[in-house]
Amino acid sequence: MGIVKADMAVSLDGYSAGLDQTLEHPFGPLAGERLHTWMFEYGDAHKAEVDAIVGAGAYIMGRNMFSPGRGQWDLEWKGWWGDNPPYHGPVYILTHHARDPIPMEGGTTFHFVTDGIESALEQARAAAGDQDVAIAGGASTVQQYLAAGLLDEMHLHIAPIILGGGERLLENVGDPKLEPVEATGSPAATHLIYRVVR
Amino acid sequence: MGIVKADMAVSLDGYSAGLDQTLEHPFGPLAGERLHTWMFEYGDAHKAEVDAIVGAGAYIMGRNMFSPGRGQWDLEWKGWWGDNPPYHGPVYILTHHARDPIPMEGGTTFHFVTDGIESALEQARAAAGDQDVAIAGGASTVQQYLAAGLLDEMHLHIAPIILGGGERLLENVGDPKLEPVEATGSPAATHLIYRVVR
Repeated sequence: MGIVKADMAVSLDGYSAGLDQTLEHPFGPLAGERLHTWMFEYGDAHKAEVDAIVGAGAYIMGRNMFSPGRGQWDLEWKGWWGDNPPYHGPVYILTHHARDPIPMEGGTTFHFVTDGIESALEQARAAAGDQDVAIAGGASTVQQYLAAGLLDEMHLHIAPIILGGGERLLENVGDPKLEPVEATGSPAATHLIYRVVR
Repeated sequence: MGIVKADMAVSLDGYSAGLDQTLEHPFGPLAGERLHTWMFEYGDAHKAEVDAIVGAGAYIMGRNMFSPGRGQWDLEWKGWWGDNPPYHGPVYILTHHARDPIPMEGGTTFHFVTDGIESALEQARAAAGDQDVAIAGGASTVQQYLAAGLLDEMHLHIAPIILGGGERLLENVGDPKLEPVEATGSPAATHLIYRVVR
């Protein structure tokens, strides 16, 4: 069976998104670009990490990562990623508002889960089979899985920037026992892998 | 000429001290031990890092790192480190209250600087000669040197723990340009070195 992992880009001061998130700037103006420079501008040098992020058998994400809207769904909205999202597999979206699944090009299907994080994980595990389940974000979703003891590995991609404000990744998670597994440096980001001991 | 560097132990969520600091627990109960387990329990495995921390030609620290007292000096107080502190060189302590230098065993002398961080750095540089100047802490002192553009390198020793509260290291420092220099993993801590580009 695969593991349950979360891959998150964070600033050196621990923010996974900046202030002032908007439709045009889902991570806040400037912060998104700066948090993901390693991926978008230096992707070749970080191929292993990028491949791993979209190499899971199924994905789980919070509604706010899927959509800028709140409340009832705007049925026109099908995510930030265009017709052919990079997931190429089932993506389970945590929401309070039911919605029919959305099949996209390239094998991605967006499913909407209204009965909580454990149910989403159960469905994702069943769909992933022997492959990993990836908690794709955002911060609040990763926090919930970590706090509930449902995460096996946390992969942090630390951009060498100090944002000074925004959404912190590692708060409201209690005091999980963590074991450093790997630390890899590069000029654009430092990749740290932690195992969550249960 | 040597560089100006700061070595700090931080939790994975960015705290360099926990809550509830007291005389018995200068980093807060439990937090100090957990932040420094890599150094005290696994010192042999981290000899290079530990040697580097006390290998500078001169040191600068904030008053709160030297003493739990505030206001006028208790002249009986000569630091947390006993008769033979680990610095074996001049240590410049930032304070608003003048005090005569205190020569200790083993070559450590505590000097008290009342005219600001630049003056302390000037004195430390002169004393260090070709060797490095180390900003020994605490968080607020490191922040002031980083924000003022006076730091060349920041060495972070990330303990694999989440404290959930305390004194944050990387706040009030503006937006310095940082370059990752080195990332070294171990089971007890991850050591990251950043160069501050000026």
